[in-house]
Amino acid sequence: MKLQLALDVCTIEEGLKLVEAVADYIDIIEIGTPLIIEHGLQPVARFKERFPGKLILADVKIMDAGEHEAKLCFAKGADIVTVLGVAHDSTIAGVVKAAKAYGKQVLVDMIDVHDIAKRALEIEKLGADFLCVHTAFDIQSTGVNPLDELRLINAVLTVKKAAVAGGVKVATVGDIVKEKPEIIVVGGGITSQSDPVVAAKRIKEIMEESI
Amino acid sequence: MKLQLALDVCTIEEGLKLVEAVADYIDIIEIGTPLIIEHGLQPVARFKERFPGKLILADVKIMDAGEHEAKLCFAKGADIVTVLGVAHDSTIAGVVKAAKAYGKQVLVDMIDVHDIAKRALEIEKLGADFLCVHTAFDIQSTGVNPLDELRLINAVLTVKKAAVAGGVKVATVGDIVKEKPEIIVVGGGITSQSDPVVAAKRIKEIMEESI
Repeated sequence: MKLQLALDVCTIEEGLKLVEAVADYIDIIEIGTPLIIEHGLQPVARFKERFPGKLILADVKIMDAGEHEAKLCFAKGADIVTVLGVAHDSTIAGVVKAAKAYGKQVLVDMIDVHDIAKRALEIEKLGADFLCVHTAFDIQSTGVNPLDELRLINAVLTVKKAAVAGGVKVATVGDIVKEKPEIIVVGGGITSQSDPVVAAKRIKEIMEESI
Repeated sequence: MKLQLALDVCTIEEGLKLVEAVADYIDIIEIGTPLIIEHGLQPVARFKERFPGKLILADVKIMDAGEHEAKLCFAKGADIVTVLGVAHDSTIAGVVKAAKAYGKQVLVDMIDVHDIAKRALEIEKLGADFLCVHTAFDIQSTGVNPLDELRLINAVLTVKKAAVAGGVKVATVGDIVKEKPEIIVVGGGITSQSDPVVAAKRIKEIMEESI
Protein backbone atom coordinates (compact mmCIF):
# COMPACT_ATOMS: atom_id res chain seq x y z
CA MET A 1 0.00 0.00 0.00
CA LYS A 2 1.56 3.24 -1.21
CA LEU A 3 0.97 6.81 -0.06
CA GLN A 4 0.70 9.35 -2.86
CA LEU A 5 1.08 13.05 -2.05
CA ALA A 6 -0.91 15.28 -4.42
CA LEU A 7 0.63 18.68 -5.07
CA ASP A 8 -2.15 20.85 -6.45
CA VAL A 9 -2.21 24.36 -5.08
CA CYS A 10 1.41 25.31 -4.44
CA THR A 11 4.34 26.73 -6.34
CA ILE A 12 7.03 24.34 -7.55
CA GLU A 13 9.40 25.65 -4.87
CA GLU A 14 6.83 25.17 -2.10
CA GLY A 15 6.20 21.65 -3.39
CA LEU A 16 9.89 20.75 -3.41
CA LYS A 17 10.26 22.02 0.17
CA LEU A 18 7.18 20.11 1.33
CA VAL A 19 8.27 16.84 -0.27
CA GLU A 20 11.72 17.23 1.32
CA ALA A 21 9.99 17.45 4.72
CA VAL A 22 7.65 14.47 4.28
CA ALA A 23 9.85 12.29 2.04
CA ASP A 24 10.15 9.55 4.68
CA TYR A 25 6.40 8.94 4.61
CA ILE A 26 5.43 9.11 0.95
CA ASP A 27 5.99 6.78 -1.98
CA ILE A 28 4.52 8.67 -4.96
CA ILE A 29 4.73 12.38 -5.74
CA GLU A 30 1.72 13.56 -7.74
CA ILE A 31 2.25 16.60 -9.94
CA GLY A 32 -1.36 17.78 -9.79
CA THR A 33 -3.44 18.96 -12.74
CA PRO A 34 -3.29 22.68 -11.79
CA LEU A 35 0.52 22.50 -11.65
CA ILE A 36 0.60 20.84 -15.10
CA ILE A 37 -1.77 23.46 -16.50
CA GLU A 38 0.42 26.23 -15.14
CA HIS A 39 3.89 24.84 -15.81
CA GLY A 40 3.50 21.91 -18.20
CA LEU A 41 5.82 18.96 -17.60
CA GLN A 42 8.67 21.00 -16.16
CA PRO A 43 7.76 20.08 -12.54
CA VAL A 44 7.66 16.38 -13.52
CA ALA A 45 11.28 16.61 -14.65
CA ARG A 46 12.33 18.70 -11.63
CA PHE A 47 10.79 16.43 -9.00
CA LYS A 48 12.17 13.32 -10.72
CA GLU A 49 15.66 14.83 -10.70
CA ARG A 50 15.41 15.92 -7.06
CA PHE A 51 13.71 12.74 -5.77
CA PRO A 52 14.90 9.90 -8.02
CA GLY A 53 13.86 7.29 -5.43
CA LYS A 54 10.20 8.32 -5.54
CA LEU A 55 7.63 7.51 -8.20
CA ILE A 56 6.40 10.59 -10.05
CA LEU A 57 2.76 10.65 -11.18
CA ALA A 58 1.74 13.19 -13.84
CA ASP A 59 -1.94 13.92 -13.27
CA VAL A 60 -2.68 14.97 -16.84
CA LYS A 61 -6.17 13.36 -16.90
CA ILE A 62 -5.87 12.41 -20.57
CA MET A 63 -9.17 12.44 -22.51
CA ASP A 64 -7.97 12.06 -26.13
CA ALA A 65 -4.81 11.42 -28.18
CA GLY A 66 -3.86 8.91 -25.48
CA GLU A 67 -0.65 7.49 -26.87
CA HIS A 68 0.78 10.85 -27.93
CA GLU A 69 0.01 12.71 -24.70
CA ALA A 70 1.21 9.85 -22.49
CA LYS A 71 4.51 9.62 -24.39
CA LEU A 72 5.13 13.33 -23.73
CA CYS A 73 4.84 12.64 -19.99
CA PHE A 74 6.91 9.45 -19.87
CA ALA A 75 9.63 11.14 -21.94
CA LYS A 76 9.92 13.84 -19.27
CA GLY A 77 10.33 11.35 -16.41
CA ALA A 78 6.83 10.42 -15.29
CA ASP A 79 6.53 6.92 -13.79
CA ILE A 80 2.72 6.93 -13.78
CA VAL A 81 0.38 8.84 -16.10
CA THR A 82 -3.36 9.36 -15.56
CA VAL A 83 -6.14 8.92 -18.12
CA LEU A 84 -9.85 9.47 -17.49
CA GLY A 85 -12.17 6.49 -17.08
CA VAL A 86 -14.79 8.43 -19.08
CA ALA A 87 -12.42 8.54 -22.06
CA HIS A 88 -12.93 6.27 -25.06
CA ASP A 89 -11.48 2.75 -24.80
CA SER A 90 -9.05 3.48 -27.63
CA THR A 91 -7.70 6.49 -25.73
CA ILE A 92 -7.07 4.38 -22.61
CA ALA A 93 -5.54 1.66 -24.80
CA GLY A 94 -3.22 4.28 -26.33
CA VAL A 95 -2.00 5.35 -22.89
CA VAL A 96 -1.41 1.70 -21.94
CA LYS A 97 0.54 1.19 -25.18
CA ALA A 98 2.77 4.20 -24.42
CA ALA A 99 3.32 2.98 -20.84
CA LYS A 100 4.40 -0.47 -22.05
CA ALA A 101 6.82 1.10 -24.54
CA TYR A 102 8.46 3.02 -21.67
CA GLY A 103 8.14 0.27 -19.03
CA LYS A 104 5.97 2.63 -16.97
CA GLN A 105 2.44 2.60 -15.51
CA VAL A 106 -1.11 3.89 -16.07
CA LEU A 107 -3.63 5.03 -13.48
CA VAL A 108 -7.22 5.41 -14.71
CA ASP A 109 -9.07 8.15 -12.85
CA MET A 110 -12.68 7.00 -12.36
CA ILE A 111 -13.90 10.53 -11.54
CA ASP A 112 -17.51 11.09 -12.68
CA VAL A 113 -17.82 7.56 -14.12
CA HIS A 114 -21.47 6.64 -13.64
CA ASP A 115 -21.66 2.83 -13.70
CA ILE A 116 -18.37 2.31 -11.92
CA ALA A 117 -18.49 -1.48 -11.50
CA LYS A 118 -19.23 -2.07 -15.19
CA ARG A 119 -16.59 0.42 -16.36
CA ALA A 120 -13.98 -0.97 -13.93
CA LEU A 121 -14.22 -4.38 -15.58
CA GLU A 122 -13.91 -2.89 -19.07
CA ILE A 123 -10.87 -0.87 -18.03
CA GLU A 124 -9.20 -3.80 -16.29
CA LYS A 125 -9.31 -5.62 -19.63
CA LEU A 126 -7.59 -2.68 -21.35
CA GLY A 127 -4.50 -3.35 -19.22
CA ALA A 128 -4.49 -0.41 -16.81
CA ASP A 129 -2.22 -0.79 -13.77
CA PHE A 130 -4.40 1.14 -11.32
CA LEU A 131 -8.05 2.22 -11.17
CA CYS A 132 -8.58 5.22 -8.93
CA VAL A 133 -11.95 5.97 -7.39
CA HIS A 134 -12.02 9.73 -6.99
CA THR A 135 -14.51 12.08 -5.40
CA ALA A 136 -14.20 15.35 -7.35
CA PHE A 137 -12.89 18.31 -5.36
CA ASP A 138 -15.89 20.27 -6.62
CA ILE A 139 -18.37 17.97 -4.85
CA GLN A 140 -16.43 17.12 -1.67
CA SER A 141 -18.32 19.81 0.25
CA THR A 142 -21.52 17.79 -0.24
CA GLY A 143 -20.09 15.14 2.12
CA VAL A 144 -19.59 12.51 -0.60
CA ASN A 145 -16.50 10.36 -0.04
CA PRO A 146 -14.81 7.67 -2.13
CA LEU A 147 -15.14 4.76 0.34
CA ASP A 148 -18.29 3.22 -1.16
CA GLU A 149 -16.84 3.33 -4.67
CA LEU A 150 -13.62 1.75 -3.39
CA ARG A 151 -15.62 -1.18 -1.97
CA LEU A 152 -17.51 -1.45 -5.26
CA ILE A 153 -14.46 -1.76 -7.50
CA ASN A 154 -12.64 -4.03 -5.05
CA ALA A 155 -15.62 -6.35 -5.32
CA VAL A 156 -15.40 -6.61 -9.11
CA LEU A 157 -11.68 -6.39 -9.96
CA THR A 158 -10.02 -9.76 -10.41
CA VAL A 159 -6.58 -8.39 -9.48
CA LYS A 160 -6.06 -5.84 -6.69
CA LYS A 161 -5.31 -2.56 -8.38
CA ALA A 162 -7.45 0.03 -6.65
CA ALA A 163 -6.37 3.56 -5.80
CA VAL A 164 -8.44 6.08 -3.90
CA ALA A 165 -8.53 9.88 -3.91
CA GLY A 166 -10.71 12.76 -2.89
CA GLY A 167 -10.62 14.42 0.51
CA VAL A 168 -8.68 11.64 2.28
CA LYS A 169 -7.27 12.78 5.65
CA VAL A 170 -6.13 11.41 9.04
CA ALA A 171 -9.74 11.17 10.26
CA THR A 172 -10.95 9.12 7.28
CA VAL A 173 -7.93 7.06 6.22
CA GLY A 174 -8.59 4.35 8.83
CA ASP A 175 -11.74 3.11 7.08
CA ILE A 176 -10.01 3.30 3.73
CA VAL A 177 -6.98 1.18 4.69
CA LYS A 178 -9.35 -1.61 5.76
CA GLU A 179 -10.27 -1.98 2.07
CA LYS A 180 -6.57 -2.45 1.19
CA PRO A 181 -6.19 -0.24 -1.88
CA GLU A 182 -2.82 -0.27 -3.64
CA ILE A 183 -2.50 3.52 -3.51
CA ILE A 184 -3.99 6.13 -1.18
CA VAL A 185 -3.86 9.67 -2.54
CA VAL A 186 -3.77 12.54 -0.05
CA GLY A 187 -3.63 16.23 -0.98
CA GLY A 188 -5.07 18.81 1.40
CA GLY A 189 -5.12 16.15 4.15
CA ILE A 190 -1.37 16.74 4.29
CA THR A 191 -0.62 19.98 2.42
CA SER A 192 -3.30 22.12 4.11
CA GLN A 193 -2.65 20.90 7.66
CA SER A 194 -1.01 23.13 10.27
CA ASP A 195 1.78 20.54 10.47
CA PRO A 196 2.01 18.59 7.20
CA VAL A 197 4.82 16.37 8.53
CA VAL A 198 2.75 15.21 11.50
CA ALA A 199 -0.20 14.51 9.20
CA ALA A 200 1.89 12.55 6.67
CA LYS A 201 3.58 10.54 9.46
CA ARG A 202 0.25 9.70 11.09
CA ILE A 203 -1.36 8.64 7.81
CA LYS A 204 1.61 6.41 6.97
CA GLU A 205 1.45 4.87 10.47
CA ILE A 206 -2.25 4.08 10.06
CA MET A 207 -1.46 2.45 6.70
CA GLU A 208 1.35 0.35 8.18
CA GLU A 209 -0.66 -0.72 11.23
CA SER A 210 -3.17 -2.29 8.86
CA ILE A 211 -0.72 -4.61 7.14
CA MET B 1 -19.23 31.81 -37.79
CA LYS B 2 -15.64 31.71 -36.52
CA LEU B 3 -12.72 29.55 -37.65
CA GLN B 4 -10.59 28.13 -34.84
CA LEU B 5 -7.14 26.77 -35.64
CA ALA B 6 -6.09 23.98 -33.27
CA LEU B 7 -2.36 23.78 -32.58
CA ASP B 8 -1.70 20.31 -31.21
CA VAL B 9 1.40 18.67 -32.59
CA CYS B 10 3.92 21.44 -33.18
CA THR B 11 6.50 23.40 -31.24
CA ILE B 12 5.60 26.88 -30.03
CA GLU B 13 7.87 28.42 -32.69
CA GLU B 14 6.27 26.34 -35.47
CA GLY B 15 2.85 27.39 -34.20
CA LEU B 16 3.75 31.08 -34.17
CA LYS B 17 5.06 30.84 -37.73
CA LEU B 18 1.96 28.99 -38.93
CA VAL B 19 -0.45 31.45 -37.34
CA GLU B 20 1.49 34.33 -38.89
CA ALA B 21 0.91 32.71 -42.30
CA VAL B 22 -2.82 31.99 -41.90
CA ALA B 23 -3.75 34.95 -39.68
CA ASP B 24 -6.05 36.47 -42.30
CA TYR B 25 -8.31 33.43 -42.28
CA ILE B 26 -8.62 32.45 -38.63
CA ASP B 27 -10.45 34.01 -35.70
CA ILE B 28 -9.49 31.84 -32.73
CA ILE B 29 -6.09 30.31 -31.93
CA GLU B 30 -6.43 27.08 -29.95
CA ILE B 31 -3.51 26.17 -27.73
CA GLY B 32 -4.12 22.41 -27.89
CA THR B 33 -4.02 20.00 -24.95
CA PRO B 34 -0.64 18.45 -25.90
CA LEU B 35 0.95 21.92 -25.99
CA ILE B 36 -0.51 22.74 -22.56
CA ILE B 37 0.72 19.41 -21.16
CA GLU B 38 4.20 20.10 -22.48
CA HIS B 39 4.56 23.81 -21.81
CA GLY B 40 1.74 24.81 -19.44
CA LEU B 41 0.19 28.23 -20.02
CA GLN B 42 3.32 29.83 -21.45
CA PRO B 43 2.11 29.47 -25.08
CA VAL B 44 -1.24 31.06 -24.12
CA ALA B 45 0.59 34.17 -22.95
CA ARG B 46 2.98 34.17 -25.95
CA PHE B 47 0.27 33.83 -28.61
CA LYS B 48 -1.88 36.49 -26.91
CA GLU B 49 1.05 38.90 -26.90
CA ARG B 50 1.94 38.20 -30.53
CA PHE B 51 -1.65 38.12 -31.84
CA PRO B 52 -3.64 40.50 -29.60
CA GLY B 53 -6.43 40.76 -32.19
CA LYS B 54 -7.18 37.04 -32.12
CA LEU B 55 -9.10 35.13 -29.48
CA ILE B 56 -6.94 32.60 -27.60
CA LEU B 57 -8.56 29.33 -26.51
CA ALA B 58 -6.79 27.27 -23.84
CA ASP B 59 -7.83 23.64 -24.44
CA VAL B 60 -7.26 22.49 -20.87
CA LYS B 61 -10.29 20.12 -20.85
CA ILE B 62 -11.02 20.82 -17.17
CA MET B 63 -12.52 17.86 -15.25
CA ASP B 64 -12.32 19.07 -11.62
CA ALA B 65 -11.47 22.18 -9.57
CA GLY B 66 -13.24 24.18 -12.26
CA GLU B 67 -13.06 27.68 -10.84
CA HIS B 68 -9.42 27.40 -9.76
CA GLU B 69 -8.09 25.89 -12.99
CA ALA B 70 -10.07 28.27 -15.22
CA LYS B 71 -8.78 31.29 -13.30
CA LEU B 72 -5.19 30.17 -13.93
CA CYS B 73 -5.93 30.24 -17.68
CA PHE B 74 -7.79 33.54 -17.79
CA ALA B 75 -5.08 35.19 -15.69
CA LYS B 76 -2.52 34.21 -18.36
CA GLY B 77 -4.51 35.73 -21.24
CA ALA B 78 -6.95 33.03 -22.37
CA ASP B 79 -10.17 34.39 -23.89
CA ILE B 80 -11.92 31.00 -23.93
CA VAL B 81 -11.31 28.02 -21.60
CA THR B 82 -12.55 24.46 -22.18
CA VAL B 83 -14.23 22.19 -19.64
CA LEU B 84 -15.44 18.65 -20.31
CA GLY B 85 -19.14 17.94 -20.75
CA VAL B 86 -18.64 14.73 -18.76
CA ALA B 87 -17.47 16.77 -15.75
CA HIS B 88 -19.74 17.34 -12.76
CA ASP B 89 -22.21 20.24 -13.04
CA SER B 90 -20.47 22.04 -10.19
CA THR B 91 -17.15 21.88 -12.07
CA ILE B 92 -18.71 23.43 -15.20
CA ALA B 93 -20.46 26.03 -13.00
CA GLY B 94 -17.08 26.88 -11.44
CA VAL B 95 -15.53 27.48 -14.86
CA VAL B 96 -18.50 29.68 -15.84
CA LYS B 97 -18.09 31.64 -12.58
CA ALA B 98 -14.40 32.24 -13.30
CA ALA B 99 -15.20 33.32 -16.88
CA LYS B 100 -17.78 35.83 -15.68
CA ALA B 101 -15.29 37.26 -13.17
CA TYR B 102 -12.82 37.85 -16.01
CA GLY B 103 -15.39 38.85 -18.68
CA LYS B 104 -14.27 35.84 -20.73
CA GLN B 105 -15.91 32.72 -22.21
CA VAL B 106 -16.38 28.97 -21.68
CA LEU B 107 -16.51 26.22 -24.30
CA VAL B 108 -17.82 22.87 -23.09
CA ASP B 109 -16.21 19.97 -24.94
CA MET B 110 -18.88 17.28 -25.45
CA ILE B 111 -16.30 14.59 -26.29
CA ASP B 112 -17.45 11.13 -25.16
CA VAL B 113 -20.76 12.46 -23.75
CA HIS B 114 -23.25 9.63 -24.26
CA ASP B 115 -26.72 11.22 -24.24
CA ILE B 116 -25.64 14.40 -25.97
CA ALA B 117 -29.09 16.02 -26.41
CA LYS B 118 -29.97 15.62 -22.72
CA ARG B 119 -26.55 16.81 -21.53
CA ALA B 120 -26.58 19.79 -23.94
CA LEU B 121 -29.73 21.12 -22.31
CA GLU B 122 -28.28 20.69 -18.81
CA ILE B 123 -25.09 22.48 -19.83
CA GLU B 124 -26.93 25.32 -21.56
CA LYS B 125 -28.63 26.03 -18.21
CA LEU B 126 -25.24 26.21 -16.49
CA GLY B 127 -24.40 29.28 -18.59
CA ALA B 128 -21.76 27.95 -20.99
CA ASP B 129 -21.03 30.14 -24.01
CA PHE B 130 -20.29 27.33 -26.47
CA LEU B 131 -21.00 23.58 -26.63
CA CYS B 132 -18.57 21.76 -28.86
CA VAL B 133 -19.43 18.42 -30.44
CA HIS B 134 -16.13 16.64 -30.81
CA THR B 135 -15.17 13.35 -32.41
CA ALA B 136 -12.14 12.14 -30.45
CA PHE B 137 -8.89 11.98 -32.42
CA ASP B 138 -8.54 8.40 -31.14
CA ILE B 139 -11.70 7.26 -32.96
CA GLN B 140 -11.54 9.38 -36.13
CA SER B 141 -9.99 6.48 -38.05
CA THR B 142 -13.27 4.57 -37.61
CA GLY B 143 -14.97 7.07 -39.94
CA VAL B 144 -17.09 8.70 -37.25
CA ASN B 145 -17.58 12.43 -37.80
CA PRO B 146 -19.21 15.14 -35.70
CA LEU B 147 -21.93 16.19 -38.18
CA ASP B 148 -24.76 14.10 -36.72
CA GLU B 149 -24.01 15.32 -33.20
CA LEU B 150 -23.93 18.91 -34.47
CA ARG B 151 -27.45 18.49 -35.92
CA LEU B 152 -28.58 16.91 -32.65
CA ILE B 153 -27.46 19.75 -30.39
CA ASN B 154 -28.62 22.42 -32.83
CA ALA B 155 -32.06 20.84 -32.59
CA VAL B 156 -32.22 21.12 -28.81
CA LEU B 157 -30.34 24.33 -27.93
CA THR B 158 -32.58 27.35 -27.49
CA VAL B 159 -29.79 29.79 -28.38
CA LYS B 160 -27.25 29.09 -31.15
CA LYS B 161 -24.00 28.22 -29.43
CA ALA B 162 -22.65 25.14 -31.16
CA ALA B 163 -19.01 24.50 -31.98
CA VAL B 164 -17.71 21.51 -33.90
CA ALA B 165 -14.37 19.68 -33.86
CA GLY B 166 -12.79 16.43 -34.88
CA GLY B 167 -11.25 15.77 -38.28
CA VAL B 168 -12.82 18.77 -40.06
CA LYS B 169 -11.15 19.52 -43.41
CA VAL B 170 -11.81 21.17 -46.79
CA ALA B 171 -13.68 18.09 -48.03
CA THR B 172 -16.08 17.94 -45.05
CA VAL B 173 -16.53 21.57 -44.00
CA GLY B 174 -19.24 22.23 -46.62
CA ASP B 175 -21.80 20.00 -44.91
CA ILE B 176 -20.85 21.43 -41.54
CA VAL B 177 -21.33 25.10 -42.48
CA LYS B 178 -24.89 24.29 -43.59
CA GLU B 179 -25.68 23.62 -39.92
CA LYS B 180 -24.41 27.11 -39.02
CA PRO B 181 -22.29 26.42 -35.93
CA GLU B 182 -20.78 29.42 -34.15
CA ILE B 183 -17.26 27.94 -34.25
CA ILE B 184 -15.61 25.44 -36.58
CA VAL B 185 -12.40 23.93 -35.20
CA VAL B 186 -9.79 22.71 -37.68
CA GLY B 187 -6.46 21.13 -36.73
CA GLY B 188 -4.79 18.69 -39.13
CA GLY B 189 -7.18 19.87 -41.86
CA ILE B 190 -4.93 22.94 -41.97
CA THR B 191 -1.72 22.11 -40.08
CA SER B 192 -1.05 18.74 -41.80
CA GLN B 193 -1.78 19.91 -45.35
CA SER B 194 0.98 20.36 -47.93
CA ASP B 195 -0.05 24.03 -48.11
CA PRO B 196 -1.72 25.11 -44.84
CA VAL B 197 -2.39 28.63 -46.16
CA VAL B 198 -4.34 27.34 -49.15
CA ALA B 199 -6.35 25.03 -46.88
CA ALA B 200 -7.14 27.77 -44.34
CA LYS B 201 -8.13 30.21 -47.13
CA ARG B 202 -10.39 27.63 -48.79
CA ILE B 203 -12.11 26.67 -45.51
CA LYS B 204 -12.73 30.33 -44.67
CA GLU B 205 -14.15 30.92 -48.17
CA ILE B 206 -16.56 27.98 -47.80
CA MET B 207 -17.66 29.42 -44.43
CA GLU B 208 -18.22 32.89 -45.92
CA GLU B 209 -20.08 31.60 -48.99
CA SER B 210 -22.64 30.06 -46.66
CA ILE B 211 -23.60 33.31 -44.93
